[in-house]
Amino acid sequence: MSTAAVSGADSGTGFDEMDVEQDYARIRQQTESLCEPLAIEDFCIQTTPEVSPTKWHLAHVSWFFEAMLLEPYLKGYQSYHPRYAYLFNSYYDTIGSMHPRPRRGHLSRPTVEEIYQYRAWVDQHMAELLADSSHAERDAILMRATIGLHHEQQHQELLLTDIKHVLAANPLKPSYSNLPQPEGKAGCAEWIEFEGGLKEIGASGDSFAYDNELPRHSVYLAPYRLASRLVTNGEYLEFMDAGGYEQPEHWLADGWKTINQEKWMAPLYWQHEDGQWQYMTLAGPRPVDEYGPVCHLSYYEADAFARWAGKRLPTEWEWEAAAGDQFILGNLRETGYLHPAPADDPAVSHSGRLVQMYGDVWEWTQSPYTPYPGFRPLSGALGEYNGKFMCNQMVLRGGSCVTAEDHLRATYRNFFYPHERWQFMGMRLAEDME
Amino acid sequence: MSTAAVSGADSGTGFDEMDVEQDYARIRQQTESLCEPLAIEDFCIQTTPEVSPTKWHLAHVSWFFEAMLLEPYLKGYQSYHPRYAYLFNSYYDTIGSMHPRPRRGHLSRPTVEEIYQYRAWVDQHMAELLADSSHAERDAILMRATIGLHHEQQHQELLLTDIKHVLAANPLKPSYSNLPQPEGKAGCAEWIEFEGGLKEIGASGDSFAYDNELPRHSVYLAPYRLASRLVTNGEYLEFMDAGGYEQPEHWLADGWKTINQEKWMAPLYWQHEDGQWQYMTLAGPRPVDEYGPVCHLSYYEADAFARWAGKRLPTEWEWEAAAGDQFILGNLRETGYLHPAPADDPAVSHSGRLVQMYGDVWEWTQSPYTPYPGFRPLSGALGEYNGKFMCNQMVLRGGSCVTAEDHLRATYRNFFYPHERWQFMGMRLAEDME
Amino acid sequence: MSTAAVSGADSGTGFDEMDVEQDYARIRQQTESLCEPLAIEDFCIQTTPEVSPTKWHLAHVSWFFEAMLLEPYLKGYQSYHPRYAYLFNSYYDTIGSMHPRPRRGHLSRPTVEEIYQYRAWVDQHMAELLADSSHAERDAILMRATIGLHHEQQHQELLLTDIKHVLAANPLKPSYSNLPQPEGKAGCAEWIEFEGGLKEIGASGDSFAYDNELPRHSVYLAPYRLASRLVTNGEYLEFMDAGGYEQPEHWLADGWKTINQEKWMAPLYWQHEDGQWQYMTLAGPRPVDEYGPVCHLSYYEADAFARWAGKRLPTEWEWEAAAGDQFILGNLRETGYLHPAPADDPAVSHSGRLVQMYGDVWEWTQSPYTPYPGFRPLSGALGEYNGKFMCNQMVLRGGSCVTAEDHLRATYRNFFYPHERWQFMGMRLAEDME
Amino acid sequence: MSTAAVSGADSGTGFDEMDVEQDYARIRQQTESLCEPLAIEDFCIQTTPEVSPTKWHLAHVSWFFEAMLLEPYLKGYQSYHPRYAYLFNSYYDTIGSMHPRPRRGHLSRPTVEEIYQYRAWVDQHMAELLADSSHAERDAILMRATIGLHHEQQHQELLLTDIKHVLAANPLKPSYSNLPQPEGKAGCAEWIEFEGGLKEIGASGDSFAYDNELPRHSVYLAPYRLASRLVTNGEYLEFMDAGGYEQPEHWLADGWKTINQEKWMAPLYWQHEDGQWQYMTLAGPRPVDEYGPVCHLSYYEADAFARWAGKRLPTEWEWEAAAGDQFILGNLRETGYLHPAPADDPAVSHSGRLVQMYGDVWEWTQSPYTPYPGFRPLSGALGEYNGKFMCNQMVLRGGSCVTAEDHLRATYRNFFYPHERWQFMGMRLAEDME
Repeated sequence: MSTAAVSGADSGTGFDEMDVEQDYARIRQQTESLCEPLAIEDFCIQTTPEVSPTKWHLAHVSWFFEAMLLEPYLKGYQSYHPRYAYLFNSYYDTIGSMHPRPRRGHLSRPTVEEIYQYRAWVDQHMAELLADSSHAERDAILMRATIGLHHEQQHQELLLTDIKHVLAANPLKPSYSNLPQPEGKAGCAEWIEFEGGLKEIGASGDSFAYDNELPRHSVYLAPYRLASRLVTNGEYLEFMDAGGYEQPEHWLADGWKTINQEKWMAPLYWQHEDGQWQYMTLAGPRPVDEYGPVCHLSYYEADAFARWAGKRLPTEWEWEAAAGDQFILGNLRETGYLHPAPADDPAVSHSGRLVQMYGDVWEWTQSPYTPYPGFRPLSGALGEYNGKFMCNQMVLRGGSCVTAEDHLRATYRNFFYPHERWQFMGMRLAEDME
Repeated sequence: MSTAAVSGADSGTGFDEMDVEQDYARIRQQTESLCEPLAIEDFCIQTTPEVSPTKWHLAHVSWFFEAMLLEPYLKGYQSYHPRYAYLFNSYYDTIGSMHPRPRRGHLSRPTVEEIYQYRAWVDQHMAELLADSSHAERDAILMRATIGLHHEQQHQELLLTDIKHVLAANPLKPSYSNLPQPEGKAGCAEWIEFEGGLKEIGASGDSFAYDNELPRHSVYLAPYRLASRLVTNGEYLEFMDAGGYEQPEHWLADGWKTINQEKWMAPLYWQHEDGQWQYMTLAGPRPVDEYGPVCHLSYYEADAFARWAGKRLPTEWEWEAAAGDQFILGNLRETGYLHPAPADDPAVSHSGRLVQMYGDVWEWTQSPYTPYPGFRPLSGALGEYNGKFMCNQMVLRGGSCVTAEDHLRATYRNFFYPHERWQFMGMRLAEDME
Repeated sequence: MSTAAVSGADSGTGFDEMDVEQDYARIRQQTESLCEPLAIEDFCIQTTPEVSPTKWHLAHVSWFFEAMLLEPYLKGYQSYHPRYAYLFNSYYDTIGSMHPRPRRGHLSRPTVEEIYQYRAWVDQHMAELLADSSHAERDAILMRATIGLHHEQQHQELLLTDIKHVLAANPLKPSYSNLPQPEGKAGCAEWIEFEGGLKEIGASGDSFAYDNELPRHSVYLAPYRLASRLVTNGEYLEFMDAGGYEQPEHWLADGWKTINQEKWMAPLYWQHEDGQWQYMTLAGPRPVDEYGPVCHLSYYEADAFARWAGKRLPTEWEWEAAAGDQFILGNLRETGYLHPAPADDPAVSHSGRLVQMYGDVWEWTQSPYTPYPGFRPLSGALGEYNGKFMCNQMVLRGGSCVTAEDHLRATYRNFFYPHERWQFMGMRLAEDME
Repeated sequence: MSTAAVSGADSGTGFDEMDVEQDYARIRQQTESLCEPLAIEDFCIQTTPEVSPTKWHLAHVSWFFEAMLLEPYLKGYQSYHPRYAYLFNSYYDTIGSMHPRPRRGHLSRPTVEEIYQYRAWVDQHMAELLADSSHAERDAILMRATIGLHHEQQHQELLLTDIKHVLAANPLKPSYSNLPQPEGKAGCAEWIEFEGGLKEIGASGDSFAYDNELPRHSVYLAPYRLASRLVTNGEYLEFMDAGGYEQPEHWLADGWKTINQEKWMAPLYWQHEDGQWQYMTLAGPRPVDEYGPVCHLSYYEADAFARWAGKRLPTEWEWEAAAGDQFILGNLRETGYLHPAPADDPAVSHSGRLVQMYGDVWEWTQSPYTPYPGFRPLSGALGEYNGKFMCNQMVLRGGSCVTAEDHLRATYRNFFYPHERWQFMGMRLAEDME
């Protein structure tokens, strides 16, 4: 996952002096809380080049504060360790060279304990910097600290996404924690209509946003419909049972190539055992819940399902225009950080509302991740945060059950390669209105 | 290269009965004329998985007529050879399995002579089919024959593109044919302004177009400027000399990764020898012409150059909206099929016109190749022509010096992966108007 | 295939002045005769990195005469073409850099006709050199010419081996030429006993031998038995039918890994169609002949078969010691250059003789290819002929139906990697005598 | 590393009832002692497919006792965990499927603590089994327990070899433990002469030996000389300084290919920094000791050095015949388990003795690893211990500074692929006597 630098700096909004200090303590603590169920050994493992070890996440977000705030702004600051910039820089080429990503799991040292000490050091100096209300660069500091906290929240999600991959790769199938079984059934999906026309897309500048959400600009949309809820596991099983994975006519050329090379026959984490489908969850293996939103799909699979169903995926602008009209939180957020949420109650009609827009799964859109007209990346290394990824990736909208709540907003643009599926990714259908 | 199925069929326009018969003979003959300079050995070689042997092109386009026209419509037709469908199907999964693309160069048989016999057989039966003016499916036949001819013209371009790759891979550096040296100098690039607003994009239905150019629809554009001419080799050399290939700040993340993995330091076919840059042309190696349009660039290189220059690439809509206003042929088409054209005369101002829009090099745009709103692929196998490639590729506009003239139109959407550069690809700069 | 430099030079034996001139003309002509059945297109194809195009073989053996004889010894000689040394050097690193082996099939030029012209040029100058009976380096010239002719004969075999691979890779399954169907049945294999003790191994110096057959030296052998004939296709089918390819206990670790990665279930060129096993031959596809010697096996498969049968492969010394006792030509050489020979007549007992020692298939031995004690490679580039391959390869003994007759001798050491199977390779069983 | 199953079972020698119980406790304890300097995180890492995590070694050797002894012989025994056989089987295909070797580092669980509990469980049940002196299969039990202990000792060496790789891959360059700096200088190498003739090679059956050391048999050797000591780092630096890595004439073809692909310019763990060569040791980075034996070389490098020096590597039989004459322990064993030993004192002549035969570095021989004449692998799964690796690997003799002392014997055959160099591997020169 990647994101992009804040707009708030220019507008004087998007953060508040008091809040940043409090938020800093709160968010940094949340990160560590997420690690409480883990054994030391769990912190070290990298199962694919995309997955980072837990302890790497813990150190990287701390290095981010060092590199973006302490070194430029805290007078007399000495970096904690001369090699940590090399070890914990993720992809900021303009800052310097870095340890190769596929080898993050080759590092037994620093130990977990040493990384917690590093975090404490950074926290102590950040507290000092944030307390200096008369600093000549106060505005820049607050802006960058805000970005750093949003960055840390992104890594909270990645940390859970990655630890799920690590635990799932283990034949012993350990669980991250206990979670209640999802309950309830999905109601019938309804088609919600949206008029087209010129729509304003992108962040307004009233609150925090990454640079890739800017500038706000006009997009012309034809009239369209969105499904009121997410596609369920049960619906996806129909596609599988109908031979969807063997029929080239549903698939993009690159998708067909991918599923054949990778021998994919189901979403990630699904296994057919003893005559039934199971999937790995953060609470260990469970039978597939037919009413839960389908999750851990590649873009190729989402697109093929939509085509098979005679529908399509929405564009990111269709999604945002619809979400802007009605900010509706995922109705089952209580399952919290840990498992795709069960869907809504069957007895209740959606009554023309969109549900499950936030907090269940990220929704693939058919929009490639490109710059908005007039896009300007932040200057310096922060300009690498988002802009350089604007090629070959697809936008996802909404937010998942492991996304920090502060991260849920209508203009947020998440992005991944179309073959990736280890994130909590699913889909909602769309269609043209004729 | 790939394209997509015609719209003309629905509108009754885009072809004319008399023309199709005449065009068929003319275009089929043109293909064979392009092969005249070649030795038998040249027809057989495949230097990378993307490149096809000349003889494969010759057979594939003939199979296309067999599969799309003779077999469904010519009564009593027997296919010429039971294995040719397997050998010469390119990517139509719904028709059947096919010989793997990377092994097209493993086939010594059928021989070149046998493939010419195959072409003659197909031509004879196509003549019979096209002569039957009372055929019950006359409209579909004319529509499909028209597609088949456009398809053959695409492969005329590919044939030259691929034979250039084959000859360039040979240390003996043989030439395809003699070509005059380019003359003239590039004038100063001017910035041509375009008002924004709602623009109609896509084919109008008055003449032939592929399905991916449809439907015509509205797009909202902010005001913008385009450079009056293409970027020249001389300008690109400045980027190279300034260290552009070593500075990560100009590059997309995937581009930076690509140039480092592939060790690219210059466009394809460029070699530094005896203190000067040379490139391979269809007329053999020549010194780089500083006034000629830079060619054989990946999207990544075009994008990095633009960023280094403080500009950007145009979107495909900006390009089309501008081209629609003023249909201006590449002013140096006389160099014909064989070499990137030299640029315009330096003494002459462009006078607010765009030049080199067609017939020099395909122009990378910043637009990923996606379906237009309401896009409907043709039914059946022809639906695979364009639609299934709408992921991971970028749109190029205009047309190159090896593009058939009938193929040059403002709405034409060519598309390739961002790392590909063996086509005749270059760029024109754009910028926002503020 | 690779071989090694002659010993005859030192001993004054192994060649004869008159013979060399006559042999030169005869052997060079034989090479060209082997190409008569081919179309121009057949000369150009490389189906795997190990396979070379026919025209490359034709040019390489000519370059060998240029590099080893004409350039050092023919006064005033100018090389035919300045780039041919680069194109047609195979692996002589000390001579200079070379075109990468996997790209030999990327060269459409020089054309076949140009290569025949090159051959004629070399022949004309070789005739001049060989006719100069008073040349100061006469001995070295005759020695090197002799090596060059043996080298050319090795490539005669490779040329046929490689063209078989090229034709077999083509779904049209073209044949190289007509060949009679094999007749006769294999008699029962008998066990021939050999006393152990100290044996003299290696070439005696009385006639031509490569450097890797030298020096003659003592080896101590325990008593052993060899099967009187080669393993047949019918016997190998029993192994396949018994599940041999699915049972790890028969296989070397590297063999088990190889057959699983490559998904091998039968020898190369075997295909199961319509309920029966067929294989590709130089005369096109034929039903598997149960009495013919099994061919196109890797070392791993030969070893696994032997283990499954409760036997083992012979060492190269056991083979040579046995062959030295009784020089017996393959009894069915009349099938000539083109197809593994059918086995001997069933009615005739082998009567304690070894049969099929030469001229059917090369026989895998259990001996890794290593230097004989006291081995000295030839000096200069010819020292690269054999010595540098003495690692990771296994010795094969005997000779195949496509081996030139002059190449059949008891001390000849052929060698290939254990996973290779495109040569005409089979096996004979051995066992300990207890 | 791999080895082979004991012969002692047949002869009734090679173990002693009392010893096995005592040895069991001692050797199991030694393994755990070796882990004392490690942090929990160090136990989990796999840096290449060949390297196993420390905790995997700890568990695998315990599983070996479970699979080979407790399950077949301890009445009523239930395996400790139903998935451990899958996780900790290394390569015993006949026992069942196994976790893929390259993913041993993907397992955070079982934790280190859980593995120690597993070890304790196995120890407790082994004690029970070994205490049952009246067991009907007493002989087999003692034989297999002996193998299991030798097996554990092999993994003691591997554990140290692998943890060195893990620590060296870390940019922080942590050390395993403190070690004294080597002292002393290497004396001049002398050439020790050995008469040839028929020699008895292989284990005598008087004490424990693996099956690959059997049967004892005759080999005929020509007269030869061995260098009195190992090749030093200083001597190897001369080869490097003379351009040895750039000159193809010294290299085997596969070696030349390997060093160019891998870009090797020095032994593993060597780095040129600040104008001098350093290498990683178990005590962290140190300057290269010119008198220490060169270590962490591939076979290709050892062979190229020998060729450059005008010498060769010994055969494994030459080594064994020489060692058998004079069992001389490495004279500097006091450096213990942890670092290649410094060489002998310069002031002292070797006086016609071979030194450094054991306990410094394993010595590459020029002998491929093949079965001795009449070799019979043990029956059942133990037959996979050694025999199936007898292809593509080279024999090393002697023993290294991290080899358990009980493992040092003249007939011991260690074996690795010629490109491998992460073991403590070096060389001694040989030459023919003429």
